[in-house]
Amino acid sequence: MTERMLNILVIDEDPGRAGQVEQGLRESGYGRVTVVRPSLDLVRRVESLAPDVIIIDLENPDRDSLEQMFQVTRELRRPIAMFVDQSDAATIQAAIEAGVSAYVVDGLRKERIRPIVDMAISRFNAFDRLRRERDEARSALADRKTIERAKGLLMRQKGLDEEAAYAAMRRAAMKQNRKLVEIAHSIVTAYQLDV
Amino acid sequence: MTERMLNILVIDEDPGRAGQVEQGLRESGYGRVTVVRPSLDLVRRVESLAPDVIIIDLENPDRDSLEQMFQVTRELRRPIAMFVDQSDAATIQAAIEAGVSAYVVDGLRKERIRPIVDMAISRFNAFDRLRRERDEARSALADRKTIERAKGLLMRQKGLDEEAAYAAMRRAAMKQNRKLVEIAHSIVTAYQLDV
Repeated sequence: MTERMLNILVIDEDPGRAGQVEQGLRESGYGRVTVVRPSLDLVRRVESLAPDVIIIDLENPDRDSLEQMFQVTRELRRPIAMFVDQSDAATIQAAIEAGVSAYVVDGLRKERIRPIVDMAISRFNAFDRLRRERDEARSALADRKTIERAKGLLMRQKGLDEEAAYAAMRRAAMKQNRKLVEIAHSIVTAYQLDV
Repeated sequence: MTERMLNILVIDEDPGRAGQVEQGLRESGYGRVTVVRPSLDLVRRVESLAPDVIIIDLENPDRDSLEQMFQVTRELRRPIAMFVDQSDAATIQAAIEAGVSAYVVDGLRKERIRPIVDMAISRFNAFDRLRRERDEARSALADRKTIERAKGLLMRQKGLDEEAAYAAMRRAAMKQNRKLVEIAHSIVTAYQLDV
């Protein structure tokens, strides 16, 4: 995707400053820029705008404003670049844990916007891919445990051997057009009924 | 760990510039600073120094020097902050993929060293934790597959039921003081011999 096509959202509570950021972005070659002010329904509004990159300009936020903003960034799975004028080590760590892809402790200077937007996107993609790989592996492991458990229950309760138990689950999955693991969940639930 | 205790390694091919970086670090409160110049055995040397953070100052590197440095950073599992004066989107992405925790396209300015060192550490820790979680989940999944496979082979070949097959593997593991998955690997290997 070329820079011109990127849909960039700027969150800034100061309209004057937001205007400068918007202008800086346009001068840096970003044509699609939307500016919003922080609000109670910020997460929902940002999600409905579906930006490619989010820029949050905070200058010198107090602890409460920062924490509020981190609550927002935690929910947004998007590349986020956040600009502040100064910060301590604990806040830097909090920003990273809150999903901020680029936390720039130097204020927002026009000539640095492009590399930081590129950085936020690349950083977000690398982190998101790793997170997806972790979640997929965990989910595959959990599914496998459930399927093995259901198979074991079927073998004991129905006197089936391993292959017959597995085949019975497969048949049920195909017949009901459901996933094998869903059938397995039902079996585990059913045999665990405390009656 | 307080800043004063951090063991910081600076990699810079220009001794004069390295001296300035070192001085900047000391003025920023970092007392333990070592400077090395790039060399063929850089990875080994860095590993033997076991720094907490690595700072690489490159100013305006050509493509070859950058690629050489990325080969080094790929092998070092440490927080790495790399400073260049300018960069394009592709190089920024390459830096992130090469394990650079903070890639700063703004040159190295003394007053920015502290937040960037903090950032590199936090970013590295977040990424490393995620990578470990992914690797652990993948490894647990692979182990489980091997154990299930070995159990199935034992059941078929020895006419055992599931519990007896599992118990036989457990006994072998305890007796030989090895992990269950190691016994399972041996069983899979043995039964797969093409004789």
